[in-house]
This record gives sequence, C-alpha cells and structure tokens, in this order.
Amino acid sequence: MLRTHTCGDLRKTDAGTQATLCGWVDSYRDHGGGLFVDLRDRYGITQVVFNPPDTPADLIEASKDLRAEYVLQVTGNVEPRPEGMANAKHKSGEIELRVTEMKLLNKAKSPPVSPSESVTELPGEEIRLKHRYLDLRRPAMQRAMLLRDKIVKGMRDHFADEGFVDVETPILGRSTPEGARDYLVPSRVHPGKFYALPQSPQLYKQILMMAGYDRYVQVARCFRDEDLRADRQPEFTQLDLEMAFIDDDDIIAVIDTLVEKLAKDLLGLDVKLPLPRMTYDEAMTRFGHDAPDLRFGLEIVDLTDLAPKSEFGVFKSVVEAGGHVRAINVPGGAEHYSRRGIDGLTEFVKGFGAKGLAWFKCEEGDKLNSNIAKFFPEELLAEMATRLGSKKGDLVLFSADKWKGTCKVLHALRTKIGEEMKFYDEKAMSFSWVTEFPMFERTDESDNPQAEGRWSAMHHPFTAPLDEHVEFLDSDPERCRAKAYDLVINGSEAGGGTIRIHDADVQSKVFSLLGIDKETADDRFGFLLEALQYGAPPHGGIALGLDRFVMLLGGYDNIRDVIAFPKTQKATDMMTEAPGEVDTKQLKELSVKVDL
Amino acid sequence: MLRTHTCGDLRKTDAGTQATLCGWVDSYRDHGGGLFVDLRDRYGITQVVFNPPDTPADLIEASKDLRAEYVLQVTGNVEPRPEGMANAKHKSGEIELRVTEMKLLNKAKSPPVSPSESVTELPGEEIRLKHRYLDLRRPAMQRAMLLRDKIVKGMRDHFADEGFVDVETPILGRSTPEGARDYLVPSRVHPGKFYALPQSPQLYKQILMMAGYDRYVQVARCFRDEDLRADRQPEFTQLDLEMAFIDDDDIIAVIDTLVEKLAKDLLGLDVKLPLPRMTYDEAMTRFGHDAPDLRFGLEIVDLTDLAPKSEFGVFKSVVEAGGHVRAINVPGGAEHYSRRGIDGLTEFVKGFGAKGLAWFKCEEGDKLNSNIAKFFPEELLAEMATRLGSKKGDLVLFSADKWKGTCKVLHALRTKIGEEMKFYDEKAMSFSWVTEFPMFERTDESDNPQAEGRWSAMHHPFTAPLDEHVEFLDSDPERCRAKAYDLVINGSEAGGGTIRIHDADVQSKVFSLLGIDKETADDRFGFLLEALQYGAPPHGGIALGLDRFVMLLGGYDNIRDVIAFPKTQKATDMMTEAPGEVDTKQLKELSVKVDL
Repeated sequence: MLRTHTCGDLRKTDAGTQATLCGWVDSYRDHGGGLFVDLRDRYGITQVVFNPPDTPADLIEASKDLRAEYVLQVTGNVEPRPEGMANAKHKSGEIELRVTEMKLLNKAKSPPVSPSESVTELPGEEIRLKHRYLDLRRPAMQRAMLLRDKIVKGMRDHFADEGFVDVETPILGRSTPEGARDYLVPSRVHPGKFYALPQSPQLYKQILMMAGYDRYVQVARCFRDEDLRADRQPEFTQLDLEMAFIDDDDIIAVIDTLVEKLAKDLLGLDVKLPLPRMTYDEAMTRFGHDAPDLRFGLEIVDLTDLAPKSEFGVFKSVVEAGGHVRAINVPGGAEHYSRRGIDGLTEFVKGFGAKGLAWFKCEEGDKLNSNIAKFFPEELLAEMATRLGSKKGDLVLFSADKWKGTCKVLHALRTKIGEEMKFYDEKAMSFSWVTEFPMFERTDESDNPQAEGRWSAMHHPFTAPLDEHVEFLDSDPERCRAKAYDLVINGSEAGGGTIRIHDADVQSKVFSLLGIDKETADDRFGFLLEALQYGAPPHGGIALGLDRFVMLLGGYDNIRDVIAFPKTQKATDMMTEAPGEVDTKQLKELSVKVDL
Repeated sequence: MLRTHTCGDLRKTDAGTQATLCGWVDSYRDHGGGLFVDLRDRYGITQVVFNPPDTPADLIEASKDLRAEYVLQVTGNVEPRPEGMANAKHKSGEIELRVTEMKLLNKAKSPPVSPSESVTELPGEEIRLKHRYLDLRRPAMQRAMLLRDKIVKGMRDHFADEGFVDVETPILGRSTPEGARDYLVPSRVHPGKFYALPQSPQLYKQILMMAGYDRYVQVARCFRDEDLRADRQPEFTQLDLEMAFIDDDDIIAVIDTLVEKLAKDLLGLDVKLPLPRMTYDEAMTRFGHDAPDLRFGLEIVDLTDLAPKSEFGVFKSVVEAGGHVRAINVPGGAEHYSRRGIDGLTEFVKGFGAKGLAWFKCEEGDKLNSNIAKFFPEELLAEMATRLGSKKGDLVLFSADKWKGTCKVLHALRTKIGEEMKFYDEKAMSFSWVTEFPMFERTDESDNPQAEGRWSAMHHPFTAPLDEHVEFLDSDPERCRAKAYDLVINGSEAGGGTIRIHDADVQSKVFSLLGIDKETADDRFGFLLEALQYGAPPHGGIALGLDRFVMLLGGYDNIRDVIAFPKTQKATDMMTEAPGEVDTKQLKELSVKVDL
C-alpha cells in the first residue's frame, strides 16, 4: 500500500502519530512561506500543510509547483488544527497533516471539469460526458455511484436471504420477428444470421422456473433500440426476478420488504408495510394515471352526473356523447393562479388534447364563481362545491372529454400544480402499488397502422388474467383484468410484473385474442411454449428499473447522473466516441456491408 | 404461497402435523391399492403416499394417472416412515406425507431428458442443450448453478467488505481498429457506425481509477468472437477489479483472502496463506509452463551441462546449437510404462513438436539403462541419476530442443503422466501465483504475418515493468519483466492481472517498442491516454474467469455445465436457435445488408 490512511480516516485521536496519505490536490493556498493543500480521495479531504519546521525547505519549495488535481503521496505528522480552525464539513477536519515527505505521483493538466466541490459551476453536460473521468471524480457523482452500489448490494443481500438464486442469462440471444427494437449482432460463424441483445430476460426467467429454480434473481443488463427520451438509455439495468408456486401477493410481499429495508438502511426512512395498493381502475378514477404520485392529494372528482343540470353547452354535449366531466379542487389555488396564471394552465392543457379549461374560484361562503358561473343554477354550484370539498380561496379546474382524455388532462394538471404549489415535501418518498391492470388494450393507430383496433397485451402475452376473470376472455376481453402489479415511487413507475399463464388452454385463448397465430407464436417463442408442456409450475415475477430506482431514491433529476458511463440522447458515448467506424475487412468477415 | 413447506423441509419432528408441498413427480410406484410418489423440488425429495385411510378413494384413483414430471400440489399428514423404511439419501427421508388433498398443477409430456437422479443415463449434449429447461431441472445441474451463485455472492460480499465499489460499465462500447475479435452492433441512429461488445472492461476500469473510485469491482459480461475451444464461450463472465494507490502485492493479497474464504466456506478446505508464488522464469524452469499444476511433483531437471559428456549425437548437436537437454524422472514409471507404453508416449510428444523421445529406466542399484545407454559413460549415468533423484523402478524422459520446445514437451508429458499415474488426489485443490511475466514476446509468425519479429505485449500495452527493469526497456526489452500475476488453480490459469503504467514517459516507450505510433494509439484508446494526463494514480487490477473458476472449484470437466444457457462450439444456442434470420426491413433500418 502506498498509504497508511485514506483522506477521510484521521481524527483528533490520531494526533501525535505519523501517517501517509495519497490523493488529489483539491485546492491549495499559499499562506506566505508555506502551502495549505486540501488533499482529496473517495473517502474525504485532509488538510496537508507544507510549513517549517516539519517540512524541509526543499519540499516547501517544491510544493509551490503543485496544481489542482496533481496526485500526491505525503507523509507527515498528524496534529490538531489550531484553535478555531477546525473544519466541521470534513470528517478529518479537526486535524492536519504536517508534511515531512512528499512524492509527486502524477501531474495534471488544468481540468475542463473541476472535480473540486469548492468549484460550484459545472460546464455543460457534453463536456462532463466527454471528460467523464473528471466528472466522475466529483464527490457528488461519487456519492451517486456509491448509493447505486449500496442499493444493488442491498438488493442482492435481500434476495439471497430470501433464498433466491442469481442466474446469468445470455446477452447474445435470439432475434425474433417483429423485434423492432432489437439491437442486432451479426454472426461470423453463421453468415447471414444475427443474435439480438435482450430487451429483458423475460423468456429465460420463465424457463428457469420451468427448470425448477423456484426463486431466480438477476441484476440484468437490457437493451432497447428506441428513440431516447430524457430518462431512457439504449442499455439499462433491471432488477429481475421470478418465483414459482406463488401468487401476486407473494411477489408484492418480497418487494415490500426490500423497499422497507432499503428505505431504512439508505435513507433512514421508516416505511410502513404493506405498501398501499390500489387497482388500476381506482388509480385512474382518483388520479387519472396508472402511476399516481401519492405525496399529495388533489384527487379527481367526477361531476358527470351533475353537469347536465347546468346550461353550459360544452359540459352538456360531452355528457350526451357519453363523455365525462371531472375536476380537481386546488386548495388555495384561487390566489396562487391569477387570471393570467389560469391562462397559462389553459395553454398547458391544450398540449394534452384539451380544447379549453373550465374553472371556478371559490369565494366567501364557499361559493363557486367564474366566467361560466351564469350557466350554473345556485343549488348546482352549492352541490358541486360540496362534492368537491371546495373552501374559500380554492380553485376548481375541469376536464370534459372522453374518459381517457379527462385522465390525461387532469393528471397533467395535478402533477404540475402539485409541484408548483409545493403540495409535498421534496424529500418525502411515496411507495405504492397499482394492481389489476387491464389484460388488453386496443392497439393505438399511431403505433401500428396495420393493427388498428386489434387487441394488444398491456404487459406481455404470457400475463395471467385474474382467476375470476378468465371467463371474460371469451365474453368481454376489455373487462378482463390481469394479475399485474406496478411499483410506483413518487408518481413514477419504478417497475412492474405479472403472474404468468402456465395453462396451455388459457395461453391459446390469449394468443388468439392478440391475433398471434400458432406459426407466429412458435416462431417468436417456440421453445417457451414447448417448455410449458413439460411440467411448468405456476409462476410470476417482476422487474424494477434499476437506473430509475436509484435516481428516485437518491433524489436525482437526470438518469445519466446515476450511470457511470451513460450515452447521450443520440445514443453516443461522448468519452469513447462509440459508435464508431469499422474496417471493411471486419464487416466482410461478418458477411455484412454498410448500405446507406 | 401454494405450499407450507418445500420438499426438503420436513423432518421427523414434524410428524403429526399437516403440510402442503408443491413439486415435480420424480418417480412413482404402485404398491397395490395405492401410489408412492417421490415429489421433487430444488430443495429435496419427499415421499408422498396415496393410501387409505388418509387418501380419499377418488384421489387414489386420480393418482393413477400421474406421470413423471407432472406438477402437483399435495396436502397431507406428516408421518414417520415405517420402521426400516427411512431413506438416508434425502433430508426428508425419515418421514412421508400421507395425502389428503391433491391439485394437479400441470401435466408433462414424457421428457427427452429425465430430470430424475434415479435415471443415470443422460442423452447426448445436443439434446440436453435443446431441452435445457429439463436438463437444468436435474439436481446435478441445480447444484452447479447454486454453487455458481454462492461463489459469486461470496466474491461480492468479500469485495464489499474490503471497500470495493461495484460499478457497471457499458456493453455497447467502442469498436476499435484491429478489433478482430469484436462482436459488432450496427447503430440505427448513426448509419454506418457500429458499437462493439467489450472483450473486457479494461479501459473503463482504468478510467474509474483515474476518476478516484479507489477500489472497483464488477462481475462483468465479456465477449470474444473467436473459434471456440472446449472451454471458451462467445460470452463469458469475469470477476473484474482494479485498485489505486497499491502495488502488485496488494492485488495478490486481496485475492488470497478471497480464495481462502471461498475454499473454506464452499469446499471446507483450509488453504494456507499466502498462496505459493513463483516467478514466470521459475515456473518455466521447474515445470515448463506458466500455469503449473502443483498437485504433484515430476519437476523438470536440466541436464544440458552433462549432455555433451555423452556420445549421444542428438544431445550433443542440440547443445552445440544452443539448445537444452531436460528431463523428468517418473517414480515407478518403469513398471507403469512398458516398451509399448513408451512407444505411446513417443507418439504423444511428436504432437508437441518432438522428433522422438529419449528415455532411461532405472534398474537395481539406481542404474540408468536404455537403448541409448551405450552412448553414456558409467560415471555420467551415475551423475545423471543423482541429479534426477532416480531410484529403482523410475522412468526418465528427455526432451532435447530449444528452450521453448523442451518446455512444451515436458509440460505435456508431465501433465499426461501425472493424470495417468494418479500422482494426485482428484479432490485436491492447488492454488498458486505465477508472477513477473515477460513484458514482451516476439510476435509469432502464425498470428500475424505482417508483424513477424515485432514485439507484442504479453498482457496488454498498459502493463507496468518491474521498477528495477524500467531501464531494460531501452537496453534489453526481452529481459524486461512485468508487474503481472496469474492465479493458477490445478494447472489452469484462473485469472491474471497487472499493475498499469501511470507514467506518460514509460507509456510512450512501451508503445514505441510495440510499434504503436501516436496516431494508432490515439485511435485505439485516445480517451485513456487523455485521461492519464489529468491526474492518474498508480493502479492495477486483475480479472478472474468466473466460468472456469466455478468449473475448477466445483470439479466439473465441461464449462457448459456451469453456465445456465451456454452456446455450442459453433456459437449456437440450441434452445432458442440463436443466431437466427432477421427481416430485411430490420436490417434496412440499421443501414446494413447481408453480403454472403
């Protein structure tokens, strides 16, 4: 070892001893005749002093050449800092090291990204990503990586304690027809054929249940070649697990206790178990969204039955057409949103498909008033106020549209207003479950023009329906709810899973509803269907998106801040410049060529 | 949960209680009027009895349809087995479950690979790989996967205890010129450009040291597109680590304690630390190989100085040409290898480049004798016998060739004879280190005709020379030894690492010796060279091949037996049929086309 201690080790009790430290020059200041250096490593900062009489004259001279990020090995005497000079910010802030020997381990050019926390201004993200070795040297980034490490270790320990087996599944997998988002890898040994990188280990983990592994877990790398949104990466990591001989409650319970442990150990939070659960239908009814943020209220109130009692044409015609009139009551919103503020909200909801924004302010005597109040009889206004729970100073915002439209608009409004009016503590954490998702949704025209109006699986085609809904597969697929469950953290879906179908009859019915004929099914997952015939146990699982999980637990805004070497939104690695050009010769060996 | 216990849980102390089990029918036998079923899960086997009076008549009737690998849920009364009927092979062998209720969870077709341990005959490996879900259901395969899980968990715990941070490095990396063994991934966003899958996280882990992570560890998936030998896979896993502010002894020490813990916890073996170390030169001298099997002796003895005293032309001319005459003395070999046996060894060594095999048998009075004895004066024979330590009944085998040739032949002979004559206990485990490898080796003609006679790096171009050998970079590169170390288990290289160069001057010298000009260096690892200029600490690391490590610790012969979903030697996944064909449309989106 080149050191006896790290830069976060030494304490007042070490005073009078000798120590050797290694680290980077975080900052330095000449105090006339000598130099004070803050020496930094992953563990902390220690003040290192070049001063007579401890430091020989030649070393004091040499120390004058030190610059930011130079790498040093220094030996010296540990002494308490002079009275009143202790630095409470640092664990080793009560002592200093008076240098007797120094070795310059390496020099550094002036860094384009300063790793020192004393430098508060950061360059743009492109520069940070290009010089990731400097960006990652910043203590803030190191805290993110250490938190990630602790979360992953906590997960692994939890599942080991619970009897799960960690099994590695392949990265070089099967390319499947319609695998539109697959990354492909040409095979050299089999010219013209390709591997695909896995979008998830889904089929493998089901195979492992059929192979009797009972409880499987893996922190698995997954790949999806899609247009990159702010919080998506071409490669991402998921905590992936599967259990046999269980039902949905068992999966939820094993994640509940994981959340409890991690919240306690890493955030010092006491989370009460079981985590709150609501069905998909309840979530849509109360919050307009399947991943509601439960840190605050602003729940949706349905006024569809009352709306026709008004003379307001918009409401009446929506209800006549089978639509809904729903609203949220914003406590204190009347003052927070001026007329202009409401204009802003109106523009905002237009971005979510609304044609306008009907609103009321609640005045003295809890009376609703607005520019459309004249269309509403007194008693109706009073009835609405009662149902909405409006009090003086509140603002009521409406959406009148088809069910889905009202969900979209009111969820967006609720989220925006919750944040703007600080209806929750930024440090608060809310964990909950949404369950019983629909088995099927109508394929949206925008996704696939050929498939308009067809059913598609909301999760994946192996998802089991609720036992009591199996009959709806024939009679009313839309009504059929699944054994599916999503973990929601602060209004973000942190992961989801399902119980799988292990019954061949139910599986064929689902395939046929999804328009998957036998040939297609065999082509896409023939080996799984075959495995199902050799003694498949009841099973199910879940996957949590690790990157997002770390981001949410750590309170980061940007997923790239919790990934050591992330890619940009254009799927580029700024540091290595991947993807890059390759030799024609290499491509020839792989029997492919570029075709621009 | 569908069960109250697993099939390995119940004990005599549970007698008199009720239990519900789930599992697979391992075997069944009709004992007239009722059925005995061995029910199996990952945890064990429990005998389940369908018999009056516990079992209702209709269930006894239904039980007659049960077949191997049917999946059952059974509830019943736990009872001790009748006197003398306990099965000591099973943890739950002292009790049986007398069935009161049964639910058939799933049927199974007759399995092409029987998961039951009672079936000892296995089908060919192709069938096993195709029906991997059945093969993996075999208890022997489950033990392998559980051992692997325990080894990985043990590693992770060890390194967490030692303050290492687990950091994930990218799978979609940079393709580099000359990346002949890279798997490539076409980019959709950047037409004509490619990612490459990493052959190891080497550059990233060095970057992490420069970023101040101090101690990094990862169980990392790596990829190499090469012709597959028996123990290689296109994708493999390595335990990958790197440390800063350390020297080679520190890396070796942290692996030493890992080996000690794993050997103790998983094999019940007491391994003495420090593990034995020898230099590369010593290993080649004593064993002819850089990964010697230390479970047995048969060390090489050099007789080059004595050979010219004989009249044996072959020896004399080899020595005159600067070659070596070396031998191994095989205790008891004279009897074990008849004249015909020696003919077999002669054929064998020809496969390793020898022209023939000179030999002596040691007779009464420790006297060496053979068909070439006449060329050797009596005193010379006596001197040779003394140096070789030959005793009556021993066999002495020679190699006369250039140094490398003698190493190759005698290592092969030693390995073969050690195994054939059982010079070691098959269960014995030998862990050791080989250190101080040459920095450079002459590029072999067969590898790259253009580069004949050039130096190539024995490890990789960032490997640091021994401090006291830096001067040889200029004066005598061949003599230059590296801070490199390989962990050897039972004569197999289980992993290796080096201390890296962190000094820019030394790095340029090494590049120039390797014929890597600045442009090439920048092209291949420009970002690393740039990072070196911003304050790189001294650092080094190691990587252990996990698949082989598990294979060696578990005593498996085949690496595919410790990988859940391995590929064949043709890089095919027999179960999923990867690699496969893909749509032209998919390729078009990626701007590539097949070019056969």
